[in-house]
Amino acid sequence: MTSWVSNAWYVAAWDAEVDVAPLARTICGVPMVLYRKLDRSVVALRDACPHRLLPLSLGLREGDSIRCRYHGLKLGPDGIAEEMPLRSDPVNRRVCAESFVTAERHRFVWVWVGDRALADPALIPDLWACSAPGWVFDGGYTRVAADYRLMIDNLMDLTHETYVHAGSIGQPEILDAPIEAQVRADGVFVSRWMPGIEAPPFWRDALKADGPVDRWQVCRFLLPAAVMIDVGVAPVGAGATLDSHDHGVRGMVVDFMTPESETSHHYFWGMARNFDIDDAGFTARFKRQQGGVFAEDKAILEAQQASIAANPELGLTAYRIDEGGVRARQIIARAIANGETA
Amino acid sequence: MTSWVSNAWYVAAWDAEVDVAPLARTICGVPMVLYRKLDRSVVALRDACPHRLLPLSLGLREGDSIRCRYHGLKLGPDGIAEEMPLRSDPVNRRVCAESFVTAERHRFVWVWVGDRALADPALIPDLWACSAPGWVFDGGYTRVAADYRLMIDNLMDLTHETYVHAGSIGQPEILDAPIEAQVRADGVFVSRWMPGIEAPPFWRDALKADGPVDRWQVCRFLLPAAVMIDVGVAPVGAGATLDSHDHGVRGMVVDFMTPESETSHHYFWGMARNFDIDDAGFTARFKRQQGGVFAEDKAILEAQQASIAANPELGLTAYRIDEGGVRARQIIARAIANGETA
Amino acid sequence: MTSWVSNAWYVAAWDAEVDVAPLARTICGVPMVLYRKLDRSVVALRDACPHRLLPLSLGLREGDSIRCRYHGLKLGPDGIAEEMPLRSDPVNRRVCAESFVTAERHRFVWVWVGDRALADPALIPDLWACSAPGWVFDGGYTRVAADYRLMIDNLMDLTHETYVHAGSIGQPEILDAPIEAQVRADGVFVSRWMPGIEAPPFWRDALKADGPVDRWQVCRFLLPAAVMIDVGVAPVGAGATLDSHDHGVRGMVVDFMTPESETSHHYFWGMARNFDIDDAGFTARFKRQQGGVFAEDKAILEAQQASIAANPELGLTAYRIDEGGVRARQIIARAIANGETA
Repeated sequence: MTSWVSNAWYVAAWDAEVDVAPLARTICGVPMVLYRKLDRSVVALRDACPHRLLPLSLGLREGDSIRCRYHGLKLGPDGIAEEMPLRSDPVNRRVCAESFVTAERHRFVWVWVGDRALADPALIPDLWACSAPGWVFDGGYTRVAADYRLMIDNLMDLTHETYVHAGSIGQPEILDAPIEAQVRADGVFVSRWMPGIEAPPFWRDALKADGPVDRWQVCRFLLPAAVMIDVGVAPVGAGATLDSHDHGVRGMVVDFMTPESETSHHYFWGMARNFDIDDAGFTARFKRQQGGVFAEDKAILEAQQASIAANPELGLTAYRIDEGGVRARQIIARAIANGETA
Repeated sequence: MTSWVSNAWYVAAWDAEVDVAPLARTICGVPMVLYRKLDRSVVALRDACPHRLLPLSLGLREGDSIRCRYHGLKLGPDGIAEEMPLRSDPVNRRVCAESFVTAERHRFVWVWVGDRALADPALIPDLWACSAPGWVFDGGYTRVAADYRLMIDNLMDLTHETYVHAGSIGQPEILDAPIEAQVRADGVFVSRWMPGIEAPPFWRDALKADGPVDRWQVCRFLLPAAVMIDVGVAPVGAGATLDSHDHGVRGMVVDFMTPESETSHHYFWGMARNFDIDDAGFTARFKRQQGGVFAEDKAILEAQQASIAANPELGLTAYRIDEGGVRARQIIARAIANGETA
Repeated sequence: MTSWVSNAWYVAAWDAEVDVAPLARTICGVPMVLYRKLDRSVVALRDACPHRLLPLSLGLREGDSIRCRYHGLKLGPDGIAEEMPLRSDPVNRRVCAESFVTAERHRFVWVWVGDRALADPALIPDLWACSAPGWVFDGGYTRVAADYRLMIDNLMDLTHETYVHAGSIGQPEILDAPIEAQVRADGVFVSRWMPGIEAPPFWRDALKADGPVDRWQVCRFLLPAAVMIDVGVAPVGAGATLDSHDHGVRGMVVDFMTPESETSHHYFWGMARNFDIDDAGFTARFKRQQGGVFAEDKAILEAQQASIAANPELGLTAYRIDEGGVRARQIIARAIANGETA
C-alpha cells in the first residue's frame, strides 16, 4: 500500500528536461528512463535493462531506440527488444522493459503510473493557466526529501508565509483575512477575499494603477498531487468576485508534487500570469525569486520529515488553518482505498 | 527496553551551551530543545511543534516563549500553547509540547528523563568537586558514536591509559599498582594506592615540592552515568590515606555520559582541582590537553562500537581490570530492571 | 546461508599489500587483520581483540605478536594470549582471537575460510601463469560495491567489451566469433577461436611479425571465485589449436573475486604473459591500462547492483552469451548446497 494514487498522471519532468539524452528519474517508486524520439514524443521505460538490469539511462541512443551500455541489448521505444547482445542471435520480442504511457501538456511531461489500459489523456489535471492564450508560464524543479503530502499541506495553507517566508514574501495581513475551505467536484478550495485594501507593491506594479483594490488568494488541490494558487488584484468596483476575477491582474502559482518514495518527492513549481506577458526579464527574475522562496519551504519540510522520524510516538495534528490540507489528504486516501483513477 | 535508567537526571549541556537561542539535543532518545528564560532558568521541551512537528529549535524566541517557524504556533516555557497559528483563533491550552524538568548544578544543565512526578533535585548526582569552595572546574563536550556504557567501562579502568594515551598521559607504572574494586552505597569504586613513589612531573609542579609522595587514583561510578576520578599526591608522612587525602594536591576528573541513542552518547568531561585555582591560563591549557586525550578515547570507542556491529557473533569479555565497569553495568541493569530512580 | 563457498581458499591480498604493519580486510564477511611475521609468513586473525573487540588492526606489532591498542592484551601469531592487560595477571591461554590458515602462492596471499581442518594448500586454485617460468605477472586491486558473482558473469562473457570498453579495448569483431561453453572437471570454459584473421595492433606488436594469425580467447572459471582468460595469437600454420596454443604469443588475464559482503567484493586483477618478459616498462604501462579498463567495469557493476536493489520485482535473465556465467553460478551453488570444499 503506497501513500499515493496508483492510476494517475504524474508530472515526470519539465518539457525542457527531457531530450535526446536519457534522463533517469524515479516516479512513484519506479525507476524510469525518459527520452525523446526523433518526432519529439517522449518515451518512458523502466530504467533497468531486461537482461542484467543495468540502468538503461546509462545506455546509448540509436534512432528512436536505446542500446544498453553493458551487453548492447537494443530496445525500441516501446521497450521491446530489437537486437540481442549477439547480433546474430534471433530477436526474442518477449524480452522487454516495462514501458509507460506519456503525454506532454501544460509544459510538463506526464507519465501514467498504474494500469496502462486506463491511461486517458483526458484525465491529465487541468493546469489550464500554464497553456492558456494571453498567459505566460515558467518555473523550476526541486527535489524535496519529504513525503509529497507535506508539500500539499504546505501549499493549501498560506499562513506559513508569515513565518517561513518572513524574509521574502511573508505578510502579516494574510493572517487577518478570513478563509473558507470547500470541497467541490473539481477540487479542494481554500479561499481568501480581501476587499478594498491597498495593493501591495508587487500587485500595484502589475496593475500599473494606484487606488484601492480587491485581492484574492484561492488555493486549489487537484488529484493526484497538484495545487494551483490563484492570486491577484482588481480595482475596487471593477466587478471582480471570489468566483470570477479576470478584471485586473492575475497570477497562478502552479505546483505539482510527484512522489519519488514514501519520504521524498519531485517538486515542480512555477507561475503563470496574464500581465506583462512579453517581459522575458520579468519571467526570469520571478522564477529566480520563486526558486528562493521554495528553497525556504524545502528546508522546513525536510526538517519536518526528519522530526516525524525522530518522534515516532507523535502524530501531525490539524487546526482550522489546515482544513485545506486535511481535505486534500482525505480525497487522496479515498482514491487510494477505492482504487479510483485520479 | 533501553540500556539506560529512565527515571534519572542526565546532563543535557554545559551551563554555557544554553542561552537565549534554542539548542537542539537528543537526550535518551528524546529530541529536546533547550533555552533560557529571561530569569536565566532553563526550559526543556520536546523538539517538535505539537502542530506539524517542525523542530521548535528552528523557532523564534519571544519573551520566555517560543514561536514555531512554520505556522507560528506560540508555546510558553511550560510547553502550553499561548497563541494559535491564526492569532484570531481561541487558544487551545491542551495543545502542548512535552516539557521536561530541568535543574542547574555543578556547572551543568540537567534534565529529568522519565516520570516528572519523581523529579527531585536531591537526586542530582553529587559531583561536589565541580562547585566546592577552594576548587576550580572547567571542561568540554564531545559527541561519541558509541554506547555510553563503553565510556563508563573505559573510565572505570585506567589500564587503557598506557596504550590509548601512550602519546599523552600514559604511564607504565600504573600497570604495576594493585587495584581494588568495591561496591558501596555511594557508588562503585576502583582504587589504586601508590605509596612512596617519585612524583611524576605534572604532580611535582602542582605540589611545588620535591621528595617522595603517596599517590592515589580512585575511580567512582555514580548512577545513572557519571564517573569521577579522584587523583593526586601528598608528601610521604603528611597523613594521606586512600580514604582521606586532602593533604597534598588533588584533582577530580569529572565525566558524565548522557545517552543519545543506543549507540551514541554526549560526553561531558572536565577537571576540578584544589591547586593553582587562580591560574586561568593553567585551566585553559589543561582543558585543551584534556580535550586531546578524550579525542583519543573517542577514536578508540567508535572503532570498538563499529567492531561490535561487524562481529555479531562475539561478545565483550571481562578480566580483573574490568571489574569496575562490570560492577557499574550491574548497578545500571538492576536499576533498569527494578524501575528504580537513579 | 551465504552466496559463497565456505570451505575454500580466497585471495586476501596481493603479496606486497601485507607487511609488518597490520592490514584490515573483511573476507567473506569476516573482519580480518593480516600481517607478516619476521620469517615473512602471513598471519590472519579475526580483527577483534577477544577482550573488548577493538580491531587488532589498530594494534601494535611486537616481534611476531600483536598488542591491542586499548588495554594491551598481547596475542601471538596463533591468536592465543601471551600477556594479559595487567602484566602481572596469569596468562589465560583460552583467551584468543580466531586465526585463519594462510598461504602464499601465485603472488597472492590466500586465506582459508571455513573449517581449518580442511585447509589443504593443494586446493589453492591453480593460477599457474602467475608463477610459471618464462612468464611475468603483475596487476592491481579494486574494491567493487557489487556481488562478486556479477564480476564472474562479466568476465565469463566478453561481449561486454564492445560496449563497456568502447573507449579502450572493445572490438566489434568479437561479437561475430562463435562461442562455445563447456563444463569440465577443471572448470567452466567459454572459448572463441578466430582463425586466419589480421592481428590487431596489440598482438602484432607482441608477435613482432606481420601476416595472418589464428586468435583465441578462452575464459575459464575456477572455484571458488577465479577467472583466467587465455588470450593470444599464433601465425597461421604454426600449429596452434584451441586446446594447445603455445606457438605464438600468449597472455593470461587473471582475476580473483573475493566476497567482502553479499553486495561487495575485493577484485584482484592482473595479466601474465610469455612475451617481452624483461620489459618492465611494458609491464607498468599495461597494468595502468588494465586498471583503467577495470574501472569501467567497476562503474557498470556498481550501477547494476544499485539497480538490482531499486527493482526488487525484477530478476537477472540469461541469454546464450551468459552461458559461461550461468554455468559458473551453478557450480558455486552446488558446492554451497553440498558443503563441498572448493
